[in-house]
Amino acid sequence: MRTKIKNAWILTMNGNMDEYPCGEIVFDEKQILYVGEKSEIQAEVEIDAKGGIVLPGMVNTHSHASMIPFRSLQDDCPDRLRRFLIPLENGAMNEELAVLSFKYAVVEMLMSGITCFADMYYYVDKLAQACDEMGIRAILGETVYYEPTCDAKEAYGGLELGKKYMDSWGKHPLVTLTLAPHATNTNEGTIFQKAMEIVKEHNTILMTHAAEMDYEMKYFKETYKLSPIEWLDSLGCLNDHTLLAHCILANEKDLVLIQEKNAGVSHCISSNMKAGKGIAPLKEMVAKGIPVGLGTDGPSSGNTLELFSSMRLVAQSQKTKHHDRALFPAKEIVKLATIEGARSLRLDKQIGSLEVGKQADLICVSVDAPNMFPMYDAYSALVYSACSHDVKDVFVAGKHLVKDFQPIVNRKKIREELSTSMNDFRRIAKEIEKSL
Amino acid sequence: MRTKIKNAWILTMNGNMDEYPCGEIVFDEKQILYVGEKSEIQAEVEIDAKGGIVLPGMVNTHSHASMIPFRSLQDDCPDRLRRFLIPLENGAMNEELAVLSFKYAVVEMLMSGITCFADMYYYVDKLAQACDEMGIRAILGETVYYEPTCDAKEAYGGLELGKKYMDSWGKHPLVTLTLAPHATNTNEGTIFQKAMEIVKEHNTILMTHAAEMDYEMKYFKETYKLSPIEWLDSLGCLNDHTLLAHCILANEKDLVLIQEKNAGVSHCISSNMKAGKGIAPLKEMVAKGIPVGLGTDGPSSGNTLELFSSMRLVAQSQKTKHHDRALFPAKEIVKLATIEGARSLRLDKQIGSLEVGKQADLICVSVDAPNMFPMYDAYSALVYSACSHDVKDVFVAGKHLVKDFQPIVNRKKIREELSTSMNDFRRIAKEIEKSL
Repeated sequence: MRTKIKNAWILTMNGNMDEYPCGEIVFDEKQILYVGEKSEIQAEVEIDAKGGIVLPGMVNTHSHASMIPFRSLQDDCPDRLRRFLIPLENGAMNEELAVLSFKYAVVEMLMSGITCFADMYYYVDKLAQACDEMGIRAILGETVYYEPTCDAKEAYGGLELGKKYMDSWGKHPLVTLTLAPHATNTNEGTIFQKAMEIVKEHNTILMTHAAEMDYEMKYFKETYKLSPIEWLDSLGCLNDHTLLAHCILANEKDLVLIQEKNAGVSHCISSNMKAGKGIAPLKEMVAKGIPVGLGTDGPSSGNTLELFSSMRLVAQSQKTKHHDRALFPAKEIVKLATIEGARSLRLDKQIGSLEVGKQADLICVSVDAPNMFPMYDAYSALVYSACSHDVKDVFVAGKHLVKDFQPIVNRKKIREELSTSMNDFRRIAKEIEKSL
Repeated sequence: MRTKIKNAWILTMNGNMDEYPCGEIVFDEKQILYVGEKSEIQAEVEIDAKGGIVLPGMVNTHSHASMIPFRSLQDDCPDRLRRFLIPLENGAMNEELAVLSFKYAVVEMLMSGITCFADMYYYVDKLAQACDEMGIRAILGETVYYEPTCDAKEAYGGLELGKKYMDSWGKHPLVTLTLAPHATNTNEGTIFQKAMEIVKEHNTILMTHAAEMDYEMKYFKETYKLSPIEWLDSLGCLNDHTLLAHCILANEKDLVLIQEKNAGVSHCISSNMKAGKGIAPLKEMVAKGIPVGLGTDGPSSGNTLELFSSMRLVAQSQKTKHHDRALFPAKEIVKLATIEGARSLRLDKQIGSLEVGKQADLICVSVDAPNMFPMYDAYSALVYSACSHDVKDVFVAGKHLVKDFQPIVNRKKIREELSTSMNDFRRIAKEIEKSL
């Protein structure tokens, strides 16, 4: 099925940053066939964007999509992860809840213009099936953790489980399974090394939380006289198969290492600032050419699974941190949310920009809402004015997954099923809240 | 006409912070008649909120609503105000454009849940008429400036003009006219004193930009050895008729003065951070009991005329600045956007909370969108998850101005009229851009 979108302000995000203020794009389920001012190619479906902005689908480089049930719970609780989230997850998460939550989250992401995401959670074989059914692109990492988890009775059980899933899942046009050792301070070095070996064999990426927590930094300094990034490097686990989430507390030496070893970073500014953790050295990362994408983090941490508010916050936080309003112009930030995100996931050959031959992962942002007028600069409008509810149409691999603001799946049904399956979760959450 | 809203999660924002997770509210055009769990009062109109959040209409304490044509123009330009905005305003703003832009902005604010705003601009008699027609509550300050402006040929011409408008407009149930000396560094002391005298006679508030700019601070230090706040105080212009926008650079001594003199502050975090100016000492202001509201600033500065993104950014910026995730819990931030905003405008006797006898300025936020589920805490959902497009119904003084996400006015027509009247503006903007 071939689709043509007309009358669009197209931001290609290609190497030249070409844009077509009144352009056309033609694509099918295999690839993009045309991007430019006007195409002679015929298409079965024609869509009038009515001046809306067409850009590559956004790439969410870090999430825990199945954590939907945790949203708006104890948002302002100190040391929330250890005191509240992990006990609740251990007590109340199960396969059914993880899968239903995941489907809900996929709907939310698609409706917000995210067409590809990198996720760390449990039961990833089942989550992969959900992606396959729903048509979204994803890299799903089975979490490896030093204690028993909701899907592994043994410490570090995720390692074997994840490997098994990776072997059985194999190659898929949209979905890649991989391993995600939870964090530098919640895994032994040997576990990281085993995980990296498996990841390399499967040519995927290893995802982990790094340089995120004060107590993590303290632990590594006291135990190894190293930063967590240096520690990962000492294990041979910092390379172009590594994706580091957060890196809030990475110092200059760490950044040089990340750059030299060509690791990627996921910058989760909404989550990091809400938790009061700090503002990662994004300016320095980008200056070094480190592949950096944006991440929403889980819905319990960043709350919304969309990157519009993150783009705006990147501008606000970096300009303020460096006292320079010219820093990170809007165009640079849209790059982070698209092509740079794809690069950090090593998917930039397939997605992240609108170019002939690439996959047709793309979105159309409506300019109908009051906040989207006037528009002199589409990048500025996306970063400073747009919100996720302005996303009108979403395509992944040429398939029309969100049509006129609504997903093609029955989102009401997904929500009802999830809500029903949350009954135990709600009860256990209340019990843990009492003990806070 | 009496209206009842049922099945709502009501946040009263009253002194006890009472909330009713499944409550009812009844009101007419004169006042709120009931807030609680269930009312026996009959009403002509019944609305089922379907679990949505009902709260007081948000109070936008600082804006330049007529600056809609400037949105998304040179957002990342250094020293933008002096190099770009003021030359463009002087060259291209006129009464028709100011009024049409203002109407457009009022639609945007209403649709975003803002029911009352404090504005600084020109042609305020005409803007007041627009408020009267459209039914929104506002305090409109005629700007007083040391150079000729778009509506005054003489330096400081706004002073006489504004006084004339104030005299002729008189008392109005929704709209108050007043004076707004532009900023501490763009007006003589005697002008501030004359303006304060007129403001006191009319029992309104004087609005000005203060402690916002690095060059402003430098000028006052070098010229008077005072901070701009101290300078205002030395003129007798710091009192409970004063509303200071920004105060980013206010120091501890300034804050003590503001507290002692009972002046109000408008905190415009989205605009301030986008401009890289800094994060105002909000924690310290609130600790001192200073009346602080939130402001969007103009659409050229904060870009969107809504307070949801500002609420979220208040949380993110303050928690990060003080490295404390427990600081400014969501409930405190919703207070800033409602009752504290009303207090800073000296309107807290009439609006800002849902209490019997107060004006029925209130909104209903839908929980239908994916980002609004689950919801354990309505404050958290508003601050961390909601966006302006989730606002479903808006009432000002009991009148239903936004129904089921759409304003009762013809917003398409307003946009078309504005767009047509922007032709000269667009041309002049391009000319000035060339000289940057």
